[in-house]
Amino acid sequence: MEPRFTFGLWTVGNPGRDPFGGPTRAPVDPVDSVKQLAERGAWGVSLHDDDLVPPGSSAADRDRIVARFKAALEETGMGVGMATTNLFGHPAFKDGAFVSNDRRVRRAAIGKAMRAIDLGAELGGEVYVFWGGREGTEAAVAKDPRDALERYREAVNVLVEYSESQGYGFRFALEPKPNEPRGDLFLPTVGHALHFISTLDRPELVGVNPEVAHETMAGLSFHHAVGQALWAGKLFHIDLNGQDVGRYDQDFRFGAEDLKEAFLLVRLLERAGYDGPRHFDAHSFRNEDAAGVWDFAEGCMRTYRALADAAERFDALPEVQEALEAASTPELAVASVDGDEPDALKAEAGQLDALAERGYYNERLDQLVVDVLLGVR
Amino acid sequence: MEPRFTFGLWTVGNPGRDPFGGPTRAPVDPVDSVKQLAERGAWGVSLHDDDLVPPGSSAADRDRIVARFKAALEETGMGVGMATTNLFGHPAFKDGAFVSNDRRVRRAAIGKAMRAIDLGAELGGEVYVFWGGREGTEAAVAKDPRDALERYREAVNVLVEYSESQGYGFRFALEPKPNEPRGDLFLPTVGHALHFISTLDRPELVGVNPEVAHETMAGLSFHHAVGQALWAGKLFHIDLNGQDVGRYDQDFRFGAEDLKEAFLLVRLLERAGYDGPRHFDAHSFRNEDAAGVWDFAEGCMRTYRALADAAERFDALPEVQEALEAASTPELAVASVDGDEPDALKAEAGQLDALAERGYYNERLDQLVVDVLLGVR
Amino acid sequence: MEPRFTFGLWTVGNPGRDPFGGPTRAPVDPVDSVKQLAERGAWGVSLHDDDLVPPGSSAADRDRIVARFKAALEETGMGVGMATTNLFGHPAFKDGAFVSNDRRVRRAAIGKAMRAIDLGAELGGEVYVFWGGREGTEAAVAKDPRDALERYREAVNVLVEYSESQGYGFRFALEPKPNEPRGDLFLPTVGHALHFISTLDRPELVGVNPEVAHETMAGLSFHHAVGQALWAGKLFHIDLNGQDVGRYDQDFRFGAEDLKEAFLLVRLLERAGYDGPRHFDAHSFRNEDAAGVWDFAEGCMRTYRALADAAERFDALPEVQEALEAASTPELAVASVDGDEPDALKAEAGQLDALAERGYYNERLDQLVVDVLLGVR
Amino acid sequence: MEPRFTFGLWTVGNPGRDPFGGPTRAPVDPVDSVKQLAERGAWGVSLHDDDLVPPGSSAADRDRIVARFKAALEETGMGVGMATTNLFGHPAFKDGAFVSNDRRVRRAAIGKAMRAIDLGAELGGEVYVFWGGREGTEAAVAKDPRDALERYREAVNVLVEYSESQGYGFRFALEPKPNEPRGDLFLPTVGHALHFISTLDRPELVGVNPEVAHETMAGLSFHHAVGQALWAGKLFHIDLNGQDVGRYDQDFRFGAEDLKEAFLLVRLLERAGYDGPRHFDAHSFRNEDAAGVWDFAEGCMRTYRALADAAERFDALPEVQEALEAASTPELAVASVDGDEPDALKAEAGQLDALAERGYYNERLDQLVVDVLLGVR
Repeated sequence: MEPRFTFGLWTVGNPGRDPFGGPTRAPVDPVDSVKQLAERGAWGVSLHDDDLVPPGSSAADRDRIVARFKAALEETGMGVGMATTNLFGHPAFKDGAFVSNDRRVRRAAIGKAMRAIDLGAELGGEVYVFWGGREGTEAAVAKDPRDALERYREAVNVLVEYSESQGYGFRFALEPKPNEPRGDLFLPTVGHALHFISTLDRPELVGVNPEVAHETMAGLSFHHAVGQALWAGKLFHIDLNGQDVGRYDQDFRFGAEDLKEAFLLVRLLERAGYDGPRHFDAHSFRNEDAAGVWDFAEGCMRTYRALADAAERFDALPEVQEALEAASTPELAVASVDGDEPDALKAEAGQLDALAERGYYNERLDQLVVDVLLGVR
Repeated sequence: MEPRFTFGLWTVGNPGRDPFGGPTRAPVDPVDSVKQLAERGAWGVSLHDDDLVPPGSSAADRDRIVARFKAALEETGMGVGMATTNLFGHPAFKDGAFVSNDRRVRRAAIGKAMRAIDLGAELGGEVYVFWGGREGTEAAVAKDPRDALERYREAVNVLVEYSESQGYGFRFALEPKPNEPRGDLFLPTVGHALHFISTLDRPELVGVNPEVAHETMAGLSFHHAVGQALWAGKLFHIDLNGQDVGRYDQDFRFGAEDLKEAFLLVRLLERAGYDGPRHFDAHSFRNEDAAGVWDFAEGCMRTYRALADAAERFDALPEVQEALEAASTPELAVASVDGDEPDALKAEAGQLDALAERGYYNERLDQLVVDVLLGVR
Repeated sequence: MEPRFTFGLWTVGNPGRDPFGGPTRAPVDPVDSVKQLAERGAWGVSLHDDDLVPPGSSAADRDRIVARFKAALEETGMGVGMATTNLFGHPAFKDGAFVSNDRRVRRAAIGKAMRAIDLGAELGGEVYVFWGGREGTEAAVAKDPRDALERYREAVNVLVEYSESQGYGFRFALEPKPNEPRGDLFLPTVGHALHFISTLDRPELVGVNPEVAHETMAGLSFHHAVGQALWAGKLFHIDLNGQDVGRYDQDFRFGAEDLKEAFLLVRLLERAGYDGPRHFDAHSFRNEDAAGVWDFAEGCMRTYRALADAAERFDALPEVQEALEAASTPELAVASVDGDEPDALKAEAGQLDALAERGYYNERLDQLVVDVLLGVR
Repeated sequence: MEPRFTFGLWTVGNPGRDPFGGPTRAPVDPVDSVKQLAERGAWGVSLHDDDLVPPGSSAADRDRIVARFKAALEETGMGVGMATTNLFGHPAFKDGAFVSNDRRVRRAAIGKAMRAIDLGAELGGEVYVFWGGREGTEAAVAKDPRDALERYREAVNVLVEYSESQGYGFRFALEPKPNEPRGDLFLPTVGHALHFISTLDRPELVGVNPEVAHETMAGLSFHHAVGQALWAGKLFHIDLNGQDVGRYDQDFRFGAEDLKEAFLLVRLLERAGYDGPRHFDAHSFRNEDAAGVWDFAEGCMRTYRALADAAERFDALPEVQEALEAASTPELAVASVDGDEPDALKAEAGQLDALAERGYYNERLDQLVVDVLLGVR
């Protein structure tokens, strides 16, 4: 089955501004983005409320903009993979949105999210995402982390309940990030978000939206993060891009960094039967002009497909199956104990020396990954 | 109340071996460690099974060693803050213990842990810790992360059940770590461990044992990690030491790195009424001789006390209370919504421009932390 | 001697824009910054050409702006610690300035720098800084690093020669940075810059401008970096701020992160007799209003002074002198060999076992640093 | 020309000890390593003095061991790519070797290095390497960095002079590393080492030995580091392996991590005509048995060859040449100025707006790298 590729409006529409310089590309009409992406084989788009409807638009303007956008979706057959709220751009959110110390800001943030959920529902969005880009601190002493998490939980509970009360049927996905634009963000990793979800009123409606760049910034294995989310039945959406460890948020083209990790990710997604959008949350390098944006977008999809092919090829190789067997990989799926008496298990602890003899053939297996990736096998 | 300080037998007993060089200090008799620590005002010790009873000891030897150790505890009035199993040192665990691909190793690991739990109970340990130092991969393809987590869960379930069946009454604490000695470890952060606990058969008996060095290696805020654990009621134990971000596991003296983060941590523990041991899992620099070990141990306790004093002084300062007020810090403890209608909240979203005007006085507040830390206020 | 504190116009004038949100503070008139800083005890300011003279200004406007600014300097007695060129903000520099692949851009960059050097000289700047914020790549294959370094060298040679030909008498300082806003920057660390300088036509006129945040982003010791620059006689300027390891460029208030490293730095600068400006290249948190900017600026100077006092207090303590002696610290200043015959030295290699006995008392010494920092000694 | 592959005796001989566990493999006879490597197509080996001659051997034992080893080299036709001194393993070096605070240790270290240089010369080593694994600090206050660098310089000067006085004709190579096993090491990066070399008495005899893992630990571009070394004519040797950013020293199989960076490196080495050994300083995973060591060694060479082939294929593709042209990559080799008058250059600075229009087609070029790497082009 062809994977469903989606792109954020803000990704192909990224004008190339960064902390040290202004934009290098002109703004893009969202309708043009939809058309261009459709031509290149994408399945759909995603968006923040403000990506489509400029803040401060009148109700009439909003409706006109939305109608025009829906017409473009219909005309091209494109879908909306996910919708989300911009709770980071406005200066009012400088101390946080759901966890701003100012209660009025928290309420305004919740209100803005409600409006954005209405918009997402109107556009037929599949999943609703929360990314808490401002939910953090530089001066850690200014927020008791327990209060911050409690307010975060309250806001998500209120908004899930709102969606349900309106009959929107959204599934929600929380997007963790360790830092930037704040010094430290709450819910810094997939693990923290998964735990947080277990504390919600309606945990069954909320999952995670892991992003390659975000886990990678902290040097954590994205493959393992997605693995834990899948294990928990909580992979509701995914953000694909490229990132080097320990740096500013780069949002490079998918596959531009760490091809082995990208391979492991794609193999895991495909084997696990993940059927949500493959969503690219990335943008082209700042030194590209408008044409370069489409090189970027095509590259994301091209690399995903190449890695999915490589994963299939890998698993079909007899030497891979042999190496997995030699590594006892399939044996990890077998229960360790089976009604055994403690004394029996304690006795087996005496066999450690004998158990230390064998090798696990991980070099061989890992080299097979490299060989397949490099196309030499 | 004086905090209860504990040290691992392996900490003051650390001989100074590292990946590039052999030991620089002679082995230490655990009984001597107990006496030396008692003299210096520690409350107790912690231990791995193998720290006390050399692997391969006969039953008689084991009993003799344990009896001698218990006598030393009794004589000095020292307690056992926590006990744990060494599931990383023996070469049999080279591919993992609970998540080794070899089922026989997994069973031996569980059996070894049962024996160690017996020992911990015999010594009156307060908390039982699991650190999965070998539960990971270098060649990620060799373990499906979903299988690994399932085996991890199975093992913890079996062992908690074992403890309960024996009436030991242990509370368990999982200790996360992102990497080292394996390329990537499962349960890499406090967040991942908290989520994992929510999937266990007896989640109420299992909490976390966060370690300064482990979260810090990944550049995550330890203050926030402990905050999330406290918020969840899951801070069952804590490992204090010093570490630089993005490096090998350093286990420096508590407070040797990042004094502001250490201050925030101590302030949080003291304010939250955490009453478990303040456990130092650290060791003296390798260029110390035997005397330097006690400089190290005294330094850990001395810095903790100094930071606890600083935290009290900080919170007593009128200018701090004013600055917290100016930052609206107390307001974060107030619920954001109170039965409000969605339409009312949506309307408040229109007030963002006005809400953007105010400042949060975080520079002032953060400088007060620095002033208090540096003793100039 | 009171240290001479300087601030960049762009630091107190920082409007709070970041990659995810717009400005939170109004623009500041450079003349107001000069006055406000003077009132608070700063010695001077520093500036990019564009900070003072908006790009595109007419010659007449430029002259008027400069005259007004000079009048403010004169009125307040403030100096110009350093001047520099903005070679990163304009979109033309998106692929680099001195190392853009486009030769026309490289020439324009050199021309802009010449104009800016004229301005710096007119304002009486002490040092001229080059920061190559765009001199790097995201797609590494697009620039042969040898060509890039050759172009970089050419540009610096041309500009130093220009300054000399005009009789400006500037000393120049290169400011290294590992990454951001480009994926990887050339001259990523103080070491790379020091080596690069050794290849220049007039190496004696060029030194380095190390920045706390930049070395710290890569997790390198800033204390050691400044030490190597001082050892080489190349510390021509310094940028002080705060930064966590492995993150986006934070430019926090000086001393806001890693107080021990800040202490070591200040102690080194003061002991080495560094007499250049103590330049703060930082900005207040984005959640501050205009008033918070001055809390920030005062905090930078306050912490520097407190650390300089602590360093003096530290070195005056008898127990510190004893601990330094016990660590053999003064002995490191003594030559290791003194015309010895190789055979004599080879024979001494046989004494290793005996030499391994002693300890170095580093825990004691390091704890004394912590004690002094925390004001408990 | 077939690249000359070399392996350290300590690499294939690595027994699998790490900070948390003992060895998992038996010691290996260096003569067996030579034979096994020869069979697999390696060109030669490298060694520390202690790898071959156990410390404490009598003169007669030493001579017998060396003779037997030379016979094995002769029999197999293997060469010695480099020799080096173990100045990190013995506990006497716990505070440093050339920069130990104890002058007697510094002298013993120099003496041991002289003996090891004799051994290296006797074995016909091509290059002599210094890696300062203990030349650093945990307690930074214990060493003035200026004294440390001065002692470091003294030692290297003395040893180069010794080699020259004996007529050995060695070229020396310094190997930088940022940290581990010490908290911070002096000469942390290739840049710092290149600068340090410029301060030596005989700089022409000393170059660098960059190691993938070491620059990568600090998140620096290895491609750029090697580029700067080549640009300076100082790439005298190179250590190839695999490493993740911001972690303990992993020394994984070459190409096991970050294939794009490995590709860029191999392409640069091959294009620059680097003719020294391609030296693998790595070891097999700890969960391998003796057989896995040879999977590891073969993988290193296999991946290097595959990447060299990919680099050739890349540069032969017409679409790559077009993309390089579109990126103006060749134009970076052209001088920026050519006797131009300053005024002419200043005038060109007025053209920035026009120069901002073009794109640099870096996405296209970078995707071609990925395509070639994945074998889809």
